[in-house]
Amino acid sequence: MATAQELTPAAIRALTREVSAAEAEALHEQISQLMRQRIESGEWPEHLKLPAEPELAGALNVSRGTVRRAIRTLIEAGLLKQTRGKGTFVRGQMLEQEFAQELISTAQSLDREGVEYQTQVLSARVIQAPSHIAAHLGLPADDLSVLAIRRTRSVAGEVVYLLDNYLPTVLCPDLSPQVLQDRSLFGVLEHDYGVTVESVRRTFSAILPDDDVSAAMSLRPGVPLLYLEQISYQANGNSVEYSDVWVRGDRVRISSWIKR
Amino acid sequence: MATAQELTPAAIRALTREVSAAEAEALHEQISQLMRQRIESGEWPEHLKLPAEPELAGALNVSRGTVRRAIRTLIEAGLLKQTRGKGTFVRGQMLEQEFAQELISTAQSLDREGVEYQTQVLSARVIQAPSHIAAHLGLPADDLSVLAIRRTRSVAGEVVYLLDNYLPTVLCPDLSPQVLQDRSLFGVLEHDYGVTVESVRRTFSAILPDDDVSAAMSLRPGVPLLYLEQISYQANGNSVEYSDVWVRGDRVRISSWIKR
Repeated sequence: MATAQELTPAAIRALTREVSAAEAEALHEQISQLMRQRIESGEWPEHLKLPAEPELAGALNVSRGTVRRAIRTLIEAGLLKQTRGKGTFVRGQMLEQEFAQELISTAQSLDREGVEYQTQVLSARVIQAPSHIAAHLGLPADDLSVLAIRRTRSVAGEVVYLLDNYLPTVLCPDLSPQVLQDRSLFGVLEHDYGVTVESVRRTFSAILPDDDVSAAMSLRPGVPLLYLEQISYQANGNSVEYSDVWVRGDRVRISSWIKR
Repeated sequence: MATAQELTPAAIRALTREVSAAEAEALHEQISQLMRQRIESGEWPEHLKLPAEPELAGALNVSRGTVRRAIRTLIEAGLLKQTRGKGTFVRGQMLEQEFAQELISTAQSLDREGVEYQTQVLSARVIQAPSHIAAHLGLPADDLSVLAIRRTRSVAGEVVYLLDNYLPTVLCPDLSPQVLQDRSLFGVLEHDYGVTVESVRRTFSAILPDDDVSAAMSLRPGVPLLYLEQISYQANGNSVEYSDVWVRGDRVRISSWIKR
């Protein structure tokens, strides 16, 4: 498995020289303060991996408990993050979403990052599918009806995602859109309708939003968005859902670890 | 393996009704013309899969050769594309790049799409790495020198990619940037320096370019770009290369097929 670049021994030594047991300030506070300066200055960039706690404690000549407490402070401040089995990393200010590589939804991806978010259903209505959506969903010419649901996902009171989902009404005739305020669409399809999404096709591009999207996301003009088209398939190859998703380009990054 | 939605039997029957053996126009021309109308109107959207040739020939009541000739015409016109072992698909006007999912370079990705492109080296110089790049590359404090190379990749005379690559000079002390006009960076690292890239970390976001990037890409103001940060690693976990890549958001889509 790939790993991020780790902090160099020289960088740790530089830190050590600034830690003083003689100072009144608690050691863990000195350490977290020095680390904070390096993160905020960009000297320790996003994704940089910190050495393991015992190694860091040894290099700084302090106890493991002191290191752990300093790191805890910075995790709570949102400057570091710990990934189980992988280590401690400098955290960026952007949300990182791995959904170009993994079959996880935007909701699951936010959950994984430990980010709190709210979902709001803006509208839900049965419409005749536009022709490109009808074709992607393989709808028969005599029944083009789809449930069209528009939702937003907000983080810290700011709309980060706008999601337009289109579902053939035959698939989930009695779906109440309000359940999608608290539950994921894939989860509802699987648990309430026995429809399992086995694969998705996603394409990402960069766009400037039109007035409709800007209004729904409460954007000021000129904010670039990631535009994502998604088509979801069952194991038998039949498509079950088409979506257009708009993502704040200045808040969210799509992230992939790719191995040869 | 996931497959795109296939053209429905009803859509094929609709086509059949319009094909007439009595007309003077050759059958293959009638068929390619009817298909072209459906693609250009959006009724047959991007990624739609056509049935296999024998099936299509049977449904249209013409020979396989006639179908094959009609399809060939539309492939040459850039409206359909064939992927070996997968089938024939409606082609979009955007370039599709799978590099959020696979360890392929922008060059390999264009090759795979069958797109002709030109690479131009704009500048190459040895500089002291900025601190975030030094950290990502794990450079020692006493040798921050990196080879910084700026290149463009153009399709049909238009700059589609701007690539800034940073390589530790110790890794490839005598690298001549001009070789990167014709060869891929990963290929040169592997074949000329024995350095194999085993994994990459890529993050994508949407941005509006600054003046420097706009000028290098000859962009009019307001074109949104995909911005990609890439860090490449050897099998031992050491990073070998850092890049910033800017991608025309109105020309290129990043595409992923994701399986559960």
